[in-house]
Amino acid sequence: MKSYAVAIVGATGLVGQEFIKILQQRQFPLGNLRLFTTDRSAGKKVSFSYQDVLLEELHSSSFKHVDLALFSAGAEASCHFVPVAMKDGAVVLDTTAAFRLEESVPLVVPEINPQDLRRHSGLIANPCCIAIQIAMALFPIHRVNPVRRVIVDSYQAVSGSGASAMEELSLQARLILEGKNVIPHIYPHQIAFNLLPEIDVFLDNGYSKEEWRIVRETRKIMHAPEIAISATAVRVPVYIGYSAALHVEFSSKITPEEARGILGASPGVRVLDDPSVSLYPQPWVAAGQDDVFVGRIREDISLPNGLALWVVTDNVRKGTALNAVQIAETLIERGWL
Amino acid sequence: MKSYAVAIVGATGLVGQEFIKILQQRQFPLGNLRLFTTDRSAGKKVSFSYQDVLLEELHSSSFKHVDLALFSAGAEASCHFVPVAMKDGAVVLDTTAAFRLEESVPLVVPEINPQDLRRHSGLIANPCCIAIQIAMALFPIHRVNPVRRVIVDSYQAVSGSGASAMEELSLQARLILEGKNVIPHIYPHQIAFNLLPEIDVFLDNGYSKEEWRIVRETRKIMHAPEIAISATAVRVPVYIGYSAALHVEFSSKITPEEARGILGASPGVRVLDDPSVSLYPQPWVAAGQDDVFVGRIREDISLPNGLALWVVTDNVRKGTALNAVQIAETLIERGWL
Repeated sequence: MKSYAVAIVGATGLVGQEFIKILQQRQFPLGNLRLFTTDRSAGKKVSFSYQDVLLEELHSSSFKHVDLALFSAGAEASCHFVPVAMKDGAVVLDTTAAFRLEESVPLVVPEINPQDLRRHSGLIANPCCIAIQIAMALFPIHRVNPVRRVIVDSYQAVSGSGASAMEELSLQARLILEGKNVIPHIYPHQIAFNLLPEIDVFLDNGYSKEEWRIVRETRKIMHAPEIAISATAVRVPVYIGYSAALHVEFSSKITPEEARGILGASPGVRVLDDPSVSLYPQPWVAAGQDDVFVGRIREDISLPNGLALWVVTDNVRKGTALNAVQIAETLIERGWL
Repeated sequence: MKSYAVAIVGATGLVGQEFIKILQQRQFPLGNLRLFTTDRSAGKKVSFSYQDVLLEELHSSSFKHVDLALFSAGAEASCHFVPVAMKDGAVVLDTTAAFRLEESVPLVVPEINPQDLRRHSGLIANPCCIAIQIAMALFPIHRVNPVRRVIVDSYQAVSGSGASAMEELSLQARLILEGKNVIPHIYPHQIAFNLLPEIDVFLDNGYSKEEWRIVRETRKIMHAPEIAISATAVRVPVYIGYSAALHVEFSSKITPEEARGILGASPGVRVLDDPSVSLYPQPWVAAGQDDVFVGRIREDISLPNGLALWVVTDNVRKGTALNAVQIAETLIERGWL
């Protein structure tokens, strides 16, 4: 069996660490593994499958002999080094927002649009976490009953901002439980026991970049530019797991029972839906899991042919690292790497 | 100036305590104050304006010589004792869900439908917290540009379940920060660092009672049975402050600027809306405040004539106790008590 030289850029970050874990868990056909970091940890070593791997600094010839480069060191690092990696012949999977909406760059969720990978020219973008789970919950139904309108309100964990935000949540929570005040660092305001309707910077139209990503990326993944979408993206004091309340208008009538049947038969989706016994998706439970969990499926009485859904996913796994590794596996399977 | 004999039923609860605080803060024209409790604290004393007030047990003649009875001891206590209080001639303000949707019972937010108080026959219901803030944000615009459709997703603090739920959040948060597991008591699952899309029991249509209250009570307060509404109600690990993301379709076009102007001139509403400097409503900041805070006002691009809004209120104050005291003040002002 062929093996592949893989580089992880941002190897010390939350997603980078998850990449390392998932490559092992899924027994990825790994040849050489190169770990790059953009912080001060270059020169240190990381253990991988009983071996020590050196953390390297990025430079202009880092990607020689690399088959696959997984980027998770922020959009700025991607802007600089993705072209470098491509020039050296590596196929890049970029988890940042840097190139997602470029026409020539496939934006892929393997369960939804794997065929878009065929036309890649060295760079594939991983969608933002929240768009992945929205598309995963909508697409199986959309294929048989096209979506016309979606309203999304999100409940996004702090791990979306990286490991330091998780530490900040812990630190702030401790201080508040001791009756002390907190000084925010990562977020503009306190996040412990609070909510912030601000994820990324704001556009002139009043939407945050994250909300706009929900609109644009969901449409691109689903090849459905005609869907009307709007969203409010909110940061919540949860460590891992993004949740989203969806209110969807379909082209024709669909019952909750039909939706449960379709979603229950969809790879990567798990239906947890018996509210009478308090069974529904929860971020605390979804953390560490691979599936997109869907529940609270009911008629949305405010919309024609409406359904309301509650969708929860581990934002670090299926939301980011797992989805990217699944893209790599699909490329290998279909001979497109 | 005339003064009124007031009874508080559920005086040791979170809302009961807030009643005591607000009556003092607003210098309510208080004659005799009677404090009733349904727990084991009867016989103890509570300090009020430098005096000690005895906590009494409820019985069939508790409401003799009471002008105004404020009920906040749960729906069961209201079902039993509201008729008793009415028989003895007290005007009842009930903050529980017991009578809210009865045709003959006015459901009032004083800034919106004070005229409904005129037809009271001894019993007035206080709407549920989340419906109050939704109606407060919608009604000023609705009067000039009728609302057609509203989709609401809520982010509701644990104080809505009483003081013991606030303690449970603290206890669970402490345990988790120490790396320990938690055993839930008040809620069916862990609430610290988690989300629960379950508030009150579920109906056969898949909506929770809380979600259904949003639908029914918002329409009743606004005298607008024709508005299409749906909602997802979610409990979040926040102590005080309910937040709601609203996606609204109006009858005709309205710009965010026009909406800001209308809401900014509405009593009881405060616009906090400059996201470019991270200014928007937050539950942590709304706690202890009287106003309904509205921000993130922008075009909702998924709906015709759409606006998206983010609305936050202290659920214990304007959401419950303050609104009820404002109803009492309105009754007095207009001579309807």
